[in-house]
Amino acid sequence: MTTTQERSANNGVNTEALLAARSALADAPEGAQFTWRAVNEWVVGTHSESTVEEYFGLGENQTHKSTFKFSADHPEVFAAEDNGATPVEFVLVGLASCLTAGVAAVAQNRGIQLRSVKATIEGDMDILGILGGDPEVRNGFNNIRVNYEIDADATEQEIDALVAQSQKRSAVFDIITNPTNVTVSVN
Amino acid sequence: MTTTQERSANNGVNTEALLAARSALADAPEGAQFTWRAVNEWVVGTHSESTVEEYFGLGENQTHKSTFKFSADHPEVFAAEDNGATPVEFVLVGLASCLTAGVAAVAQNRGIQLRSVKATIEGDMDILGILGGDPEVRNGFNNIRVNYEIDADATEQEIDALVAQSQKRSAVFDIITNPTNVTVSVN
Repeated sequence: MTTTQERSANNGVNTEALLAARSALADAPEGAQFTWRAVNEWVVGTHSESTVEEYFGLGENQTHKSTFKFSADHPEVFAAEDNGATPVEFVLVGLASCLTAGVAAVAQNRGIQLRSVKATIEGDMDILGILGGDPEVRNGFNNIRVNYEIDADATEQEIDALVAQSQKRSAVFDIITNPTNVTVSVN
Repeated sequence: MTTTQERSANNGVNTEALLAARSALADAPEGAQFTWRAVNEWVVGTHSESTVEEYFGLGENQTHKSTFKFSADHPEVFAAEDNGATPVEFVLVGLASCLTAGVAAVAQNRGIQLRSVKATIEGDMDILGILGGDPEVRNGFNNIRVNYEIDADATEQEIDALVAQSQKRSAVFDIITNPTNVTVSVN
């Protein structure tokens, strides 16, 4: 383990490009305005399929290298067919993957070599909220817990700091911990 | 199109079972305490893989019919490999699929036959937030817009009411529009 500034790591994150993008976008902030998209189509019951393919950023429409498709459904204990992950589980996947990407990026920037990163994420929910069984119960999660197990060329304190900095810069952590305006319309 | 109370529909949602569950759980509220889970493992760079398989509910551990796996990554414009949807796109998928499941369930309960339901969802983000380029810019979405196109055996007003009721009961709509506590720890 090295603790000097000269330590180097290869976690597969191109931090030079990200730091260059930060400088370039600070000078041309219109390029930093992104719009992320998904299209969702009902299949039957509570089963739907979502497609993620295009987004807007750097001033123009962008296309992912592949088209990503996701089936969502309610589970059998909700008298449904369980043909996909539950919508709230997609939110957990989004949060865990956002924090893990951040851990890798921050580690790269700090010259910390990662060997393995595993996050277990849990969200507690009283389903009397969504069932309309108790107006005092919220529909969403009461609490979310994320636990990391990280094997890296770093001290415990440095690993804790990686995870803390990842939270500070995480889009999904912000989306979940702070209110976001959602407008729903019908054509 | 029928507008009487006797109208019937088959959208594939078992509302009788859901209403029975609501009554049963109101009398035994400990069964309504669910915990949803995902496990996320770093692959390389900003690429990670999440697994959704088990959850807790009705007083015991439950297992999905299948194991759901999701690759997440950052896109090429972030100097990444684009080996999966972006974490924030998973959040959009969660919200759209939650609202669509709700539309189907509410329609079933109201005897409205759905023919097709399509949601287009967009989230605006100034990426200077996540890049750390401007401390005044939030990391998450500034706004989310969901637009529904619904073909159903119902009036425009009834369709608007379906979508409104779905928002009111949606877990993910609540998670995104209201703050949720997230605790991150390192083992």
